[in-house]
Amino acid sequence: MSRLALTCVTDPAHPQLGKAVAEFGPVDVWEQLPQLNTTLARRARAVRPEAVAVECQRLGIRFVIPGDADWPPQLAVLEHSEMVNQFHGVPFGLFVRGVGELAEVSRQSVALVGARAATRYGEQLAFELAQDLSTSGFTVISGGAVGIDAAAHRGALSGPSPTIAALANGLNRCYPATNDPLFEHILERGLLISEFPPGEHPTRSRFLGRNRLIAALSLGTVVVEGSVRSGARNTANWVAAQRGICMATPGSVFSAMSYLPHQLVRSGEAVLVSNAAEVRELISRHPQLPPPPNPEHRPTDGLSGAELAIFEALPARGSRTPDELAARTGLTIPACLAALSALETRSLVQSNPNSSFQLSRGTK
Amino acid sequence: MSRLALTCVTDPAHPQLGKAVAEFGPVDVWEQLPQLNTTLARRARAVRPEAVAVECQRLGIRFVIPGDADWPPQLAVLEHSEMVNQFHGVPFGLFVRGVGELAEVSRQSVALVGARAATRYGEQLAFELAQDLSTSGFTVISGGAVGIDAAAHRGALSGPSPTIAALANGLNRCYPATNDPLFEHILERGLLISEFPPGEHPTRSRFLGRNRLIAALSLGTVVVEGSVRSGARNTANWVAAQRGICMATPGSVFSAMSYLPHQLVRSGEAVLVSNAAEVRELISRHPQLPPPPNPEHRPTDGLSGAELAIFEALPARGSRTPDELAARTGLTIPACLAALSALETRSLVQSNPNSSFQLSRGTK
Repeated sequence: MSRLALTCVTDPAHPQLGKAVAEFGPVDVWEQLPQLNTTLARRARAVRPEAVAVECQRLGIRFVIPGDADWPPQLAVLEHSEMVNQFHGVPFGLFVRGVGELAEVSRQSVALVGARAATRYGEQLAFELAQDLSTSGFTVISGGAVGIDAAAHRGALSGPSPTIAALANGLNRCYPATNDPLFEHILERGLLISEFPPGEHPTRSRFLGRNRLIAALSLGTVVVEGSVRSGARNTANWVAAQRGICMATPGSVFSAMSYLPHQLVRSGEAVLVSNAAEVRELISRHPQLPPPPNPEHRPTDGLSGAELAIFEALPARGSRTPDELAARTGLTIPACLAALSALETRSLVQSNPNSSFQLSRGTK
Repeated sequence: MSRLALTCVTDPAHPQLGKAVAEFGPVDVWEQLPQLNTTLARRARAVRPEAVAVECQRLGIRFVIPGDADWPPQLAVLEHSEMVNQFHGVPFGLFVRGVGELAEVSRQSVALVGARAATRYGEQLAFELAQDLSTSGFTVISGGAVGIDAAAHRGALSGPSPTIAALANGLNRCYPATNDPLFEHILERGLLISEFPPGEHPTRSRFLGRNRLIAALSLGTVVVEGSVRSGARNTANWVAAQRGICMATPGSVFSAMSYLPHQLVRSGEAVLVSNAAEVRELISRHPQLPPPPNPEHRPTDGLSGAELAIFEALPARGSRTPDELAARTGLTIPACLAALSALETRSLVQSNPNSSFQLSRGTK
């Protein structure tokens, strides 16, 4: 319930809030948030999460959170992406509507993304790719827009596998309304997902945040058509940030809609694919890469001021007693001992039989 | 005249004959060839090079050979290509017909190659690329076929720069005859080139050999369209063997003519280009690479039998006198001294004050 409540105050997820949730847990964060004097706190005071939960139940919307059996394990990649942490954070949870378990349905999936103002060629290509992928057992993931998104879902639904539409709005009502028959069809065979509670409207920021989920959920992302300003460029950036497989389909050099896929291929950001067999081959050839090491991560990250002061007062070689450390840091001896105990728990410091302390071997 | 005569016996160039020409010069090779008992020798005995020269003069065909001011220096890359040496060798010379000096006209050039059975899309693309390159001062190089070749020449001729058609037949009559008006137009503004004397007909082998010249003459090669069996695949192979810049243009995934360019891009053999600006950018970004070191080259290459015997009779450490070397090799002392002198000139051997000889430091 705390995570559901948190989705009501941030837009979409909130990196700082996400870090606080990771450290203190969503319950503590949600309880303490309304007491602060921030915009988020003011919004938190107005939220009635129980009412949101009731509305979700009425609409047949589940709320899935990290740790649930239905939470897609591949979303863990979002925790390790510097770009995700800087801009949108990991979602607090996902609202899910439709048939099937999200983790299972998204396990073997390919994202197809592209322009709303797609050409007939692009729509035909997206349809055929999705149909072929669906026939070979892959779930298609896309947005809910007209153009490539809609063509991809239609192609997937013409095959036997489910399809997932990741949306930038609450799942009570989907945008655009012209796609309502398609959304109904998806609900019968697949899933609509969103990190926004019912009633929320799509915004540009929410579309960009939504794209990180499309990239993270799928084994690979295919950019079918996109002009120079296409939002699919943002999705391709997310794929790169998550070290995923980005693919792009070629088309006429005389079409403005070929700009983005050609540019991605030319720059080496995407591999050119002409059909579903090439998509499958690429996905099977590249095993999921391990998340990159966080370049910002240091052993002292998350230390309190007192702990950091003690840590830095210990010499590279040799040891110091708590008295010596108290004298050097200006901390009381009990404070020094508490900090030393915390540092020992983190394996940053080790105690000697003579009650002195020294840096652990790995941290020197 | 000897090189011109040699073009009349080989098909197209002949690697072994090429090596003999490089070692002994074309005059000696041409004089001694008819005395051998080989197919080449039989053909050589039947050749009347003076008659070929007269025919060339009558038709306005020049014959350009390595060392001429009009010989394109970029063809030196053919000397260092293992693939060229294995299959076709360096041409003994080139027959040239039309306006301008071959070295000057080909200096700043881009090759456009592709299918005969091109689509309207491919022909339009080849035309526009060539027109734009011509407008920006580049010579277009292609073959003489219908489809992409013809469209490229027409595009080039609609701009201000010349165009070069590299052909697999003698320049008395060009193939196919349907392109005769185009060949006439090229002769007014550019060049027809071939390594075959007048009267020779095109063959499959000659087309493949011709492709190495297109790749070697140009700063980069663009593959516009080609099906799974396209001859442009062979040109792309030559570009790779010569470490040149290979480019390919995208098109509809539903067209069989897109197979080759998409496959080249997907495999990393070619860079995707959509317009002439991208071609120019790639060419300007990659300076001409130095020819790769010949893996077969050894310091003893080109030594006579006597020189090689002496070289091998010298110990890795220490020295030997001419008497000792004569005893070991069975050569006379004057022959030993002559060989030692030749080896000294090549810096393979050095003499000592006591008149003994030893291997030079670098050759041990």
